[in-house]
Amino acid sequence: MLDATLSRIDNEIDQSLNRLFDFLKIKSISTDSKFKQDCDKAADWLVEDLKSFGANAEKHNTDGHPIVTGNLGPDTGPHVLFYGHYDVQPVDPIELWDTDPFEPTLENTPIGPVIRGRGSSDDKGQLMTFVEACRAWVSENGSLPFKVSFFFEGEEESGSPSLIPFMEKHKKEISSDIVLICDTGLFDNKVPAIVTRLRGILKEEIEITGPDKDLHSGLYGGVAANPAKALVNVLSALHDKNGAITIPNFYDGVEELPQNIKNQWRSLKFNHNYFLSEVGLSTLAGESDRSALEMLWSRPTCEINGMKSGYIDEGFKTVLPSQASAKISFRLVSNQDPFKISNSFREMVKSLIPPDCKVSFGNRDASKASQMNTSSPEFEKARQAISQEWDIEAAFIGSGGSIPIAGYFQEITGVDPMLIGFSKDDDQIHSPNEKYDLESFRKGIRSWARVINSFSELQNV
Amino acid sequence: MLDATLSRIDNEIDQSLNRLFDFLKIKSISTDSKFKQDCDKAADWLVEDLKSFGANAEKHNTDGHPIVTGNLGPDTGPHVLFYGHYDVQPVDPIELWDTDPFEPTLENTPIGPVIRGRGSSDDKGQLMTFVEACRAWVSENGSLPFKVSFFFEGEEESGSPSLIPFMEKHKKEISSDIVLICDTGLFDNKVPAIVTRLRGILKEEIEITGPDKDLHSGLYGGVAANPAKALVNVLSALHDKNGAITIPNFYDGVEELPQNIKNQWRSLKFNHNYFLSEVGLSTLAGESDRSALEMLWSRPTCEINGMKSGYIDEGFKTVLPSQASAKISFRLVSNQDPFKISNSFREMVKSLIPPDCKVSFGNRDASKASQMNTSSPEFEKARQAISQEWDIEAAFIGSGGSIPIAGYFQEITGVDPMLIGFSKDDDQIHSPNEKYDLESFRKGIRSWARVINSFSELQNV
Repeated sequence: MLDATLSRIDNEIDQSLNRLFDFLKIKSISTDSKFKQDCDKAADWLVEDLKSFGANAEKHNTDGHPIVTGNLGPDTGPHVLFYGHYDVQPVDPIELWDTDPFEPTLENTPIGPVIRGRGSSDDKGQLMTFVEACRAWVSENGSLPFKVSFFFEGEEESGSPSLIPFMEKHKKEISSDIVLICDTGLFDNKVPAIVTRLRGILKEEIEITGPDKDLHSGLYGGVAANPAKALVNVLSALHDKNGAITIPNFYDGVEELPQNIKNQWRSLKFNHNYFLSEVGLSTLAGESDRSALEMLWSRPTCEINGMKSGYIDEGFKTVLPSQASAKISFRLVSNQDPFKISNSFREMVKSLIPPDCKVSFGNRDASKASQMNTSSPEFEKARQAISQEWDIEAAFIGSGGSIPIAGYFQEITGVDPMLIGFSKDDDQIHSPNEKYDLESFRKGIRSWARVINSFSELQNV
Repeated sequence: MLDATLSRIDNEIDQSLNRLFDFLKIKSISTDSKFKQDCDKAADWLVEDLKSFGANAEKHNTDGHPIVTGNLGPDTGPHVLFYGHYDVQPVDPIELWDTDPFEPTLENTPIGPVIRGRGSSDDKGQLMTFVEACRAWVSENGSLPFKVSFFFEGEEESGSPSLIPFMEKHKKEISSDIVLICDTGLFDNKVPAIVTRLRGILKEEIEITGPDKDLHSGLYGGVAANPAKALVNVLSALHDKNGAITIPNFYDGVEELPQNIKNQWRSLKFNHNYFLSEVGLSTLAGESDRSALEMLWSRPTCEINGMKSGYIDEGFKTVLPSQASAKISFRLVSNQDPFKISNSFREMVKSLIPPDCKVSFGNRDASKASQMNTSSPEFEKARQAISQEWDIEAAFIGSGGSIPIAGYFQEITGVDPMLIGFSKDDDQIHSPNEKYDLESFRKGIRSWARVINSFSELQNV
């Protein structure tokens, strides 16, 4: 049953790729309202694709972008829900792309064939690994061994504003025994992994305004408040000289890592020099007394993601700018409370604003960190299944990224989701030239077929 | 002779305005290479216009935008040279303009009719006040009373890179007894003024690079160097808590103001509260122990004119940016040496750059501060002439802005130029909705006719 399904996956990989390419061509950028119709189109595409192999499927409109749900398989065995997101990151700086981000290509590269295009890895390519596994299973065996629910959102890259209301309203339909999420990567580009610790996130936008228009810096410079100066003073005050974050009470709720987890992570022999060298760096930044994995998986951060003020184009304009703005995000761990931190951050910013400047804050977007309990049998079943596919012992790891949906499932349905994914560090997700290795895609599909097979051995859990 | 000329100016103001509007429609933005042809067109327009009232005129190509020269009048009496610039500032943020910046209009406003459009004040409108005065004089009297040379450049807003080589090469032709420059304003919006102190300027662009591409702040945040953070640390270190500039040796050469000048400036009764309130501010920034005029006219400054890093569009992108850049300008006074300051600034910046970040600097653009000797008779002649036109005692004042050309004339031809202009504080030069009061334009033309008349009484000086 499994072997035949795996062979079918290999034999039909070209058709799977063609479907993914159709999906990748849809410009479903959720953060930019210009692409609202494209997000809708991506949702429709998914509904049609699920129906094409027998699932019932439905598009649910929300205040933002639609949510797609679907069901397939008998009411026996565990009920498994799979989550993915069809929205993608913006593509700028567009001039740094070597190909059109929405004209996906299969490229031969020194590391093997890769699927190039926005969303190829994050998350359309990963989402489709599970869909293709289900399709192959059904084609080969007539039906799935248990009930699978599909749950796809289109606002993951823009803070999922419609998701919690939807999950709360449809709590019964989305309740399941097992939750699978495919939005993470291989450890160290080769070890299959289940992510059991995720950092939370807090996103803040601040805008400082001063004079009511841009001023001539000769006529006003020196006597008029400069919001760009106010902004750099605020932003530079967020860290101390040792890299620690200075916001009052920021570290409340941060737990030190238990020794057994520290040991487990150490056994992964993470090579941070190689990790940094891949992006042109060589020196570990951040807290000077912590290891790289510890900082990435178990320590909070504060990063400037963008800032803008005054004249930024070619040449020089000696303006004294009327405003300055920045986007800042915090990665959170353990029991840090995003809303308490947001309030403390905002109070600190306000206290640093000079006379004649005003500060305003954008929508805050926040989720807590989460940790999974790996003692339930499906975690070990899945770990063994993916170990077999990749022929290397799979690991329980942490992730520096934030996948708020994991926490939502824990809070709303009480299930600790299993985060399994196949992306690599060099996939350039959120950057120009995003790619997904063909190997990740093919072995990803095969991994899910093995996971489905392993779960079929579970009784109702 | 003078009275008839003044009447002609008033009677023919509509024709003068039409010519100015034609000139304003040319998009001669010198800082942006997209507008190179427009700059050339503006130079051609000036040549034709000078010829139209009998001047010989010539366009000189340079490595940048052309320089226009012309001559008119007999070889008797003082030789007077007039300088203006035909290039204008960029127009962004374009969305804040109420009208098309290059479709000038005459608008009735509560403060009277104003000419609206980019360059209306800085400097096309001001330049044309002198040209129109000469045209009216010639129309009325057949010829000018002495030799006038016109000298117009098209790179004033982009650091005048071609000007010094041109002036040195054509030193003989541009040598004159008197130099007039029209690129300054009325004091306090009503008092005609001759600017006798100008701040110098140093413009610096810095770019800090870190990772070789934008990174995912979850996957790399905390362990990878963030150039935006490096930039805010550098920029916030440029001032101390009292507003003083911290660059080593920055204040070398800054002289304290003599008591007699302090007294003269105090007698101008400058209302800094009103000055600030006009741009939505209320609190004097800068050095806490200095008066506003003292800071504006006799103290150096350091301002951030623009900065940019990472994702700055709608929504949120949690990137860790690969680069961060800023434009910074310094206003200089007395004997501050711009190149020494530039070197000291760059050394300081380099010393603050963390491991894994690199800094590069753009072209620096610099000019020293300058002071005019007002004891030669033409200064007093001109002061009396403009006092008569505006019916209020004209003043010798300072200016916070930088007009490097003034220093170039001092250095290359040995003449202290006379800076006379008619713009107002609310002209929004360098900002959206730039305007020039019709009164400034008309009385500006009349002022120059009076100055020409007063100089005709001078023997060869």
